[in-house]
Amino acid sequence: MASFTPVSDVGEFGLIDRIRAIVGEPERDDLLAGIGDDAAVYQIGGGRVHVVTTDALIETVHFDRSFMPMEYLGFKAMSVNVSDVVAMNATPRYATIVLGLPSNVSVEMVEAFYRGAQRAAARYGTVILGGDTTAARWLTVSVTVIGEAEEDAVVYRGGAQPGDLLCVTGDLGAAYAGLKVLLHQQQRLREHDADAALDLSAHRYVIQRQLTPTARLDVVQDWAARGVQPTALIDISDGLASEVHHLCRTSHCGAHLYGARIPIDLETRQVADDFAEEVDTYALFGGEDYELLFALPEEHLDRMNPETFTVIGRFTDPDEGVRVQDPTGEIISLEAAGYQHFGTARSDEEAS
Amino acid sequence: MASFTPVSDVGEFGLIDRIRAIVGEPERDDLLAGIGDDAAVYQIGGGRVHVVTTDALIETVHFDRSFMPMEYLGFKAMSVNVSDVVAMNATPRYATIVLGLPSNVSVEMVEAFYRGAQRAAARYGTVILGGDTTAARWLTVSVTVIGEAEEDAVVYRGGAQPGDLLCVTGDLGAAYAGLKVLLHQQQRLREHDADAALDLSAHRYVIQRQLTPTARLDVVQDWAARGVQPTALIDISDGLASEVHHLCRTSHCGAHLYGARIPIDLETRQVADDFAEEVDTYALFGGEDYELLFALPEEHLDRMNPETFTVIGRFTDPDEGVRVQDPTGEIISLEAAGYQHFGTARSDEEAS
Repeated sequence: MASFTPVSDVGEFGLIDRIRAIVGEPERDDLLAGIGDDAAVYQIGGGRVHVVTTDALIETVHFDRSFMPMEYLGFKAMSVNVSDVVAMNATPRYATIVLGLPSNVSVEMVEAFYRGAQRAAARYGTVILGGDTTAARWLTVSVTVIGEAEEDAVVYRGGAQPGDLLCVTGDLGAAYAGLKVLLHQQQRLREHDADAALDLSAHRYVIQRQLTPTARLDVVQDWAARGVQPTALIDISDGLASEVHHLCRTSHCGAHLYGARIPIDLETRQVADDFAEEVDTYALFGGEDYELLFALPEEHLDRMNPETFTVIGRFTDPDEGVRVQDPTGEIISLEAAGYQHFGTARSDEEAS
Repeated sequence: MASFTPVSDVGEFGLIDRIRAIVGEPERDDLLAGIGDDAAVYQIGGGRVHVVTTDALIETVHFDRSFMPMEYLGFKAMSVNVSDVVAMNATPRYATIVLGLPSNVSVEMVEAFYRGAQRAAARYGTVILGGDTTAARWLTVSVTVIGEAEEDAVVYRGGAQPGDLLCVTGDLGAAYAGLKVLLHQQQRLREHDADAALDLSAHRYVIQRQLTPTARLDVVQDWAARGVQPTALIDISDGLASEVHHLCRTSHCGAHLYGARIPIDLETRQVADDFAEEVDTYALFGGEDYELLFALPEEHLDRMNPETFTVIGRFTDPDEGVRVQDPTGEIISLEAAGYQHFGTARSDEEAS
């Protein structure tokens, strides 16, 4: 009998390691990066490369159709994949879409999905090449995006050096705040408790960040125009803490973050206050922000547009681990994932 | 209120037309073919193109896990997508895989899937670049394959001319015969009726054609070595009848098929006999053969390897429609899909 190890026992990253062991390291000169970065990279000739990424959104796992209109779903499915291409410092060019459709999805809903996907594609200069539509038990969306870059321009996760600045675009935690608001609203509607319903108009920004996130192609294009290039780059899909750990592990660095510098919108703070929760946990562990996290050598700072990013820390030697300094000055070790309250947990061993 | 048109009302091709109306014709010089052929085609510079295709296999819709071992599923998912690349006369190069995993799929099963996918990838000289694994309610597999070709070498569906020979590789109907055997066996096992179980060893070939079909990359490579190039090309995923109609519609041709020349393996004939069914319907409407159907100018015939293909008819003027001549000499109109018994239905209008 074959043994049965639940996937949850090894986790997503454990599973990727198992898959990598089977697929192996292909002996092909044209392949510059395979499984492991935001996107795979292969040469197409003339000093240029293509990068390719694919991600699925599955009903009940990744989204709730009751508060995710199909047009937004199309926009988001395109944006999250474009974000992975952008996170290689590449320009998205082509997309394919696989739609698995249960019988309660109408032609009009498919059209709405594609209107949203096409709106996002046009925004990113990406062409939807086609794909596949098929029957399914649950609404399933799988998008592949192919992007292009000069080979020398591609930025991987592993290039950060101790001393490099740790920077982030935009603000964090808003997408998670938006999800909190939408889930709360849904619960109120289910309980027919209209009085307890939130004023959604006061939460426009965070809801928009949850339902129609945008990939930061604008930032990458701005970098190209200014001739700057980060040394390491990743997009924030799983929360700041997880992504900092990815950059540090791949770059063989530690990092020191200044908690007070993490950019958080006022509306996000308001939502956390309303729910009597710590807004820092939204930013650190919430995810789905699709902002860019990157390493920047300090000497490149004067070439950057200060309106597009915030310096939130610095890369350190790997034995210093990943640490956050909270507003009171206390320094704590930052776990890769999961809730960890500022100042309540402390791991002096890990923080050395 | 938005209207609700079931997807079944417009069908897969109707839905593709609706999607095409939204996505539009992108104004991009690098894009040579978008939605509509086996794969999309875009230039990568230096007179070369990439072709990209994506297809999903969803549990209970496309396969039954009770008789589709995970390793075969991985092999098949790769083969059916490589087949679409081959059907552009291109060479597969890269693949990405999205796996949606229900909780009853173990790590060992994922590994088995990837062993099969990697076995197919190695066979086709294709590199698995990575992808995405995610939770799902039903096992969902979505594969994207990117291939490469000289721009001049790509063969589309629309290049057949009246007078060209209509040719097919391998033999047809075997995958459907294999499915019949497997479904029958499953039913017997459910009924605990071991006596009525088939001797599977007598059906090895058709079962293998159903569970582990192979893309005809060997044929395309043979064409390249011989300097021959079909004028139109498609792979047989939905059955011969459907694919002939695709070639004829896109090429603005009709076709005249000789039913007796359609290549059918003895084992396939035996299965049809056992089930008291007409084997021609397996070949015409069964699907999943992943053989190549192509148009060949007669003057190229002497450069072809006769062991790799069969001439089954000829393209005609479009007003002659798509017709089949049965072994008795009777000529009937061939519908694009659905069961139509030889000699029982006749549509003189369509056959003009």
